[in-house]
Amino acid sequence: MIIPKPNKLSDAQLAEIESIVGEFGCRIQPIVGAERSIYAILGDERHETMINRVLGLDYVDRVDQIDSPYRLMDRRSELASGKLTLAGVTLGHAPLFIAGHCTIDPKNPNLFYESAEAIKKAGAHMLRGGVWKPRTMPYSYQGDSSALDILLEARERTGLPINTEVMDEAQLNIVLEHGVDMIQVGARNALNYPLLRRIGEVTAGSKTAVLLKRGRPMAAPEECLAAAEYIAAAGNPNILLCPRGTLPQMDGYRNHPDECITQLLKEKTWASVIVDPSHSVGRAGYVPGAALAGMAYGADGIVVECHIDPGHGIGDDPKQAITPAILKDLIEDSSAVWKLRRKYER
Amino acid sequence: MIIPKPNKLSDAQLAEIESIVGEFGCRIQPIVGAERSIYAILGDERHETMINRVLGLDYVDRVDQIDSPYRLMDRRSELASGKLTLAGVTLGHAPLFIAGHCTIDPKNPNLFYESAEAIKKAGAHMLRGGVWKPRTMPYSYQGDSSALDILLEARERTGLPINTEVMDEAQLNIVLEHGVDMIQVGARNALNYPLLRRIGEVTAGSKTAVLLKRGRPMAAPEECLAAAEYIAAAGNPNILLCPRGTLPQMDGYRNHPDECITQLLKEKTWASVIVDPSHSVGRAGYVPGAALAGMAYGADGIVVECHIDPGHGIGDDPKQAITPAILKDLIEDSSAVWKLRRKYER
Amino acid sequence: MIIPKPNKLSDAQLAEIESIVGEFGCRIQPIVGAERSIYAILGDERHETMINRVLGLDYVDRVDQIDSPYRLMDRRSELASGKLTLAGVTLGHAPLFIAGHCTIDPKNPNLFYESAEAIKKAGAHMLRGGVWKPRTMPYSYQGDSSALDILLEARERTGLPINTEVMDEAQLNIVLEHGVDMIQVGARNALNYPLLRRIGEVTAGSKTAVLLKRGRPMAAPEECLAAAEYIAAAGNPNILLCPRGTLPQMDGYRNHPDECITQLLKEKTWASVIVDPSHSVGRAGYVPGAALAGMAYGADGIVVECHIDPGHGIGDDPKQAITPAILKDLIEDSSAVWKLRRKYER
Amino acid sequence: MIIPKPNKLSDAQLAEIESIVGEFGCRIQPIVGAERSIYAILGDERHETMINRVLGLDYVDRVDQIDSPYRLMDRRSELASGKLTLAGVTLGHAPLFIAGHCTIDPKNPNLFYESAEAIKKAGAHMLRGGVWKPRTMPYSYQGDSSALDILLEARERTGLPINTEVMDEAQLNIVLEHGVDMIQVGARNALNYPLLRRIGEVTAGSKTAVLLKRGRPMAAPEECLAAAEYIAAAGNPNILLCPRGTLPQMDGYRNHPDECITQLLKEKTWASVIVDPSHSVGRAGYVPGAALAGMAYGADGIVVECHIDPGHGIGDDPKQAITPAILKDLIEDSSAVWKLRRKYER
Repeated sequence: MIIPKPNKLSDAQLAEIESIVGEFGCRIQPIVGAERSIYAILGDERHETMINRVLGLDYVDRVDQIDSPYRLMDRRSELASGKLTLAGVTLGHAPLFIAGHCTIDPKNPNLFYESAEAIKKAGAHMLRGGVWKPRTMPYSYQGDSSALDILLEARERTGLPINTEVMDEAQLNIVLEHGVDMIQVGARNALNYPLLRRIGEVTAGSKTAVLLKRGRPMAAPEECLAAAEYIAAAGNPNILLCPRGTLPQMDGYRNHPDECITQLLKEKTWASVIVDPSHSVGRAGYVPGAALAGMAYGADGIVVECHIDPGHGIGDDPKQAITPAILKDLIEDSSAVWKLRRKYER
Repeated sequence: MIIPKPNKLSDAQLAEIESIVGEFGCRIQPIVGAERSIYAILGDERHETMINRVLGLDYVDRVDQIDSPYRLMDRRSELASGKLTLAGVTLGHAPLFIAGHCTIDPKNPNLFYESAEAIKKAGAHMLRGGVWKPRTMPYSYQGDSSALDILLEARERTGLPINTEVMDEAQLNIVLEHGVDMIQVGARNALNYPLLRRIGEVTAGSKTAVLLKRGRPMAAPEECLAAAEYIAAAGNPNILLCPRGTLPQMDGYRNHPDECITQLLKEKTWASVIVDPSHSVGRAGYVPGAALAGMAYGADGIVVECHIDPGHGIGDDPKQAITPAILKDLIEDSSAVWKLRRKYER
Repeated sequence: MIIPKPNKLSDAQLAEIESIVGEFGCRIQPIVGAERSIYAILGDERHETMINRVLGLDYVDRVDQIDSPYRLMDRRSELASGKLTLAGVTLGHAPLFIAGHCTIDPKNPNLFYESAEAIKKAGAHMLRGGVWKPRTMPYSYQGDSSALDILLEARERTGLPINTEVMDEAQLNIVLEHGVDMIQVGARNALNYPLLRRIGEVTAGSKTAVLLKRGRPMAAPEECLAAAEYIAAAGNPNILLCPRGTLPQMDGYRNHPDECITQLLKEKTWASVIVDPSHSVGRAGYVPGAALAGMAYGADGIVVECHIDPGHGIGDDPKQAITPAILKDLIEDSSAVWKLRRKYER
Repeated sequence: MIIPKPNKLSDAQLAEIESIVGEFGCRIQPIVGAERSIYAILGDERHETMINRVLGLDYVDRVDQIDSPYRLMDRRSELASGKLTLAGVTLGHAPLFIAGHCTIDPKNPNLFYESAEAIKKAGAHMLRGGVWKPRTMPYSYQGDSSALDILLEARERTGLPINTEVMDEAQLNIVLEHGVDMIQVGARNALNYPLLRRIGEVTAGSKTAVLLKRGRPMAAPEECLAAAEYIAAAGNPNILLCPRGTLPQMDGYRNHPDECITQLLKEKTWASVIVDPSHSVGRAGYVPGAALAGMAYGADGIVVECHIDPGHGIGDDPKQAITPAILKDLIEDSSAVWKLRRKYER
């Protein structure tokens, strides 16, 4: 891992390094962090002569070999020094709030537009909306690309950046074409390594963020970080981790709420953790408690399902979407808990 | 279930009722709640003539037959109307804080006395301290009755009421003899029905409270209430429920934190829920997050392991006890979260 | 742990040893195994002079200090040398089959007598029948001592030894008074250490066996052995371990079948393992598969619910009891699998 | 679902049906089962006129609308009538044995060739070998296409058909190009619906079988069938289901062995179930018990890791591969248990 003195290497500097490591059969993968770029050496990175020649370049600060299975995601990595800024919020300095429908109903675009306006007014920073859905049965509604147009239009109308889930490369290409701001990887694909790597590759060097859900149903903290490492090592470290409940469920909840994993993740990584209370508890009435608890456990933000009229939603919205009025309260109170919690950060 | 018009029946009234139901082969079990006493009919309580004769008494308000497996613990039960007051705190009106050593070291009484003073100063309302310990191995230290004297002396010195765990009838008799204020039933005994019934019987009509831990390792909300029902049906409804983490653990924590069950329990029962972050997370550094989260999920209080010098503690204290300084912050911040949370109570 | 040269010390020899260790503040607990008795030193057993004086006695073979948390239950313990013989079956040399009702219906004694005769004819070695039942709700049927008379009468009629569950000391005393051959400790009490110790004490030196279920819901192999160690250390090593399914259940079964733990237990302990397919799967149609699988995983026998007329049973029998005709097949086929499995024993 | 009178429609018949349903905006997806082909109507299949016109064709037997979420995989589906024959074994008539390395070492082709010969001699019907591996860390060995050449060469030498895992479309295309006989979908991808659908599409109408592992870590029986339905609905019903252990693990095993799910799966589906004892227990010494247990629970076969010299294997082989000598015993004894078990099939 090459750490340059400037935040980023110039093209000429990069070319010089590439030519050196090329002599030893290695390649360079730039990894563009929030404030720092670092340069991974792919191949056998332990050639002493190679390292010494790179170290001899006056714009190179260090060549690190972190003793961690998560060379990039580890909190001791150089990437830890920079703070990601999304939708005007610098993570770690203020909490981030993302809200929207579980599933965008292509037959009712106005419902989404109205929710989007209300969500913006309630104080959220970003819009979420499901376009395609991973469904247990092949005969269930699998989503519809036309919903993406609605999401894009809502961004246009509100000015809020947008987030949606992709499940394969075809969907990934479509959302990137339209400049979706944050790509979501769901719990079922959280250990789909070829997809993670591909996402990292096609968004390398871009501002696109990736919201990586916790693997279903009970990925260990280490597995979450290892999955993130796949994306980062392919070039994009703009990753947010997202617990969303585990199996076996707790009777009465949709899953076993796991907001508590936030503390464990943040002890190991510099990456931000955003909790998803909607999926963890699965019922609107329980969402505020889980959201506030996420903040108490140290989360950097919340992604929540919110609908102007939950009863007319599709997907999970009738059961688990909160209203914009509750969202407004929740943003205020979550921010207060977020502040209280700072005292206990290490 | 006979609900009298006065808060409590007089001896003469009780005798009159007993004589009526006796004719039908039934008996009466008084259950003395915080503000209300109710009177369970033991035996076949469905004799219409018997019910009508009892209803005819002018000091009887109603004879209820709640359609709930938890006739007493259900939030629709008559007992729901009264609020338990412990250590000057009326539960539901303000949060309750209990703190102390995991295990009292009989060789170092002063350590406990000093912790007790510091805990009082930090703002806690009640002292906890382990006298006997359920241990996985028969050859491990099983506790020592001499530790009870230390706990009693600490009550004397600080004026704080005290809580300790019992595991069998012999220990139960000892603590009652000394007027221990709150009896704790641990996770391993939380489904030990003969012990629960016995506790209910010997504390019936008294002010003694019972802190009932969630059954190990993953008792469902309904099982927790059913276990409490054993105690209440035997005469003592002064019960607090206490989640303390479940198995399988989450890697990095001692258990799988389950503060989240609080919302589910409180939806079903009028009983208060006190979270035990020390056992759920098992490491001092994680305790504040879990305690605040408990409040966010709707808990009525916290029982936490706190030691003036954790490194010199025994049992779990070296790993999981927080210091009185942290306790002080935590009481303040937990109270703030407790207040924020009220907005979302139903 | 004193290992004498003879199988058992004479009274005079025991008295001599007791007098020696008494000088060092220790006591002796005889532990009467199937073919060997060993003598635990209670107190600080590490006095070198004491050990040397005991070793000097010509009827003492060794003084062992096994480096295992399960000094008695470990497969390296001296107790491993003896094989328990129950109902004429020497465990390890042939499989043991126990069958009977989940719950004996005190209103229909003949049903149990007929089942008992049929079970004997099907080839089972021992009768089981529930007298008292641990019930989730205090208002459910909790069993009835009169059922014990039926069980005793069935023993009289068939000549088969009997097994029943106890939940507290009062029940324990009753069954011992009547010479019940095998005492069962259920899953809810499997970590109730005071009860385990008490059972060991009152059956010390007797032929009474103890069937110890796996702790609910997911006691680790080590916890099972530690629980058994409580009974053995109190004087009775005639213990059989019994997996019975764990929580969280597998959808479609009553529990998560855990016949597979047999291999892990037998690797660590000399004690026999008897599987309980009825509780693990919870439906009669699934029982044969689970029983045969238990044998495949290395079990020494099966305890199974069997009823002459399951539809007229009480407790779990209508759902999970097999008929005597199935039992007959199962005994034959289980014995065949038991034999095949020997090849893979280490 | 159109069930024709002949086993398969002629091209002209298919064209005629396609033209009818085309008028109603529907399409036809042929699904070629082992002995029967059925024809799914894609689109809104409930047009009464359309159904009546199709029913009027003299080569159409029925138009079924199974009331099951698994229209194709349900045991009541028309596909249930045919038995899959693989490697000369007709499933359901005799058990199928698949064995091979966890991971083929591209640096030691001879090890694999020797294992393959020994596996054939031991009596197995099919060879397995890992070419690419899903690895938790991006920096771990991810497999190598050159290993595929070794697998193909082993097929050439032994005449045994071959099985290997694919994780994405690129790998899928490669293995199909070389006519791999059975494609494996691993536990991490078992709910990767786009991949499952793609596999079904590209193998539709072919003889290629798909070994679908149980989703990690604890997919319910229904989820396993729903995943299989994705493959079948895309055109390939030659699917074998494969339990392989779940999380949370049982201490001492690699996973929580789940051979027991076999009974539940077979009750719902006509598809065969092959158990994978190597991954469920994770240690060679435990494999025979788990394999025999799988047969006891009703499995149709076993896929097991076997290596001529486990200590020189890579991947999981050093820990969990059995030797060909054990494999030989196991095939013999598993076949015996398979036979005993038939008596209890419903």
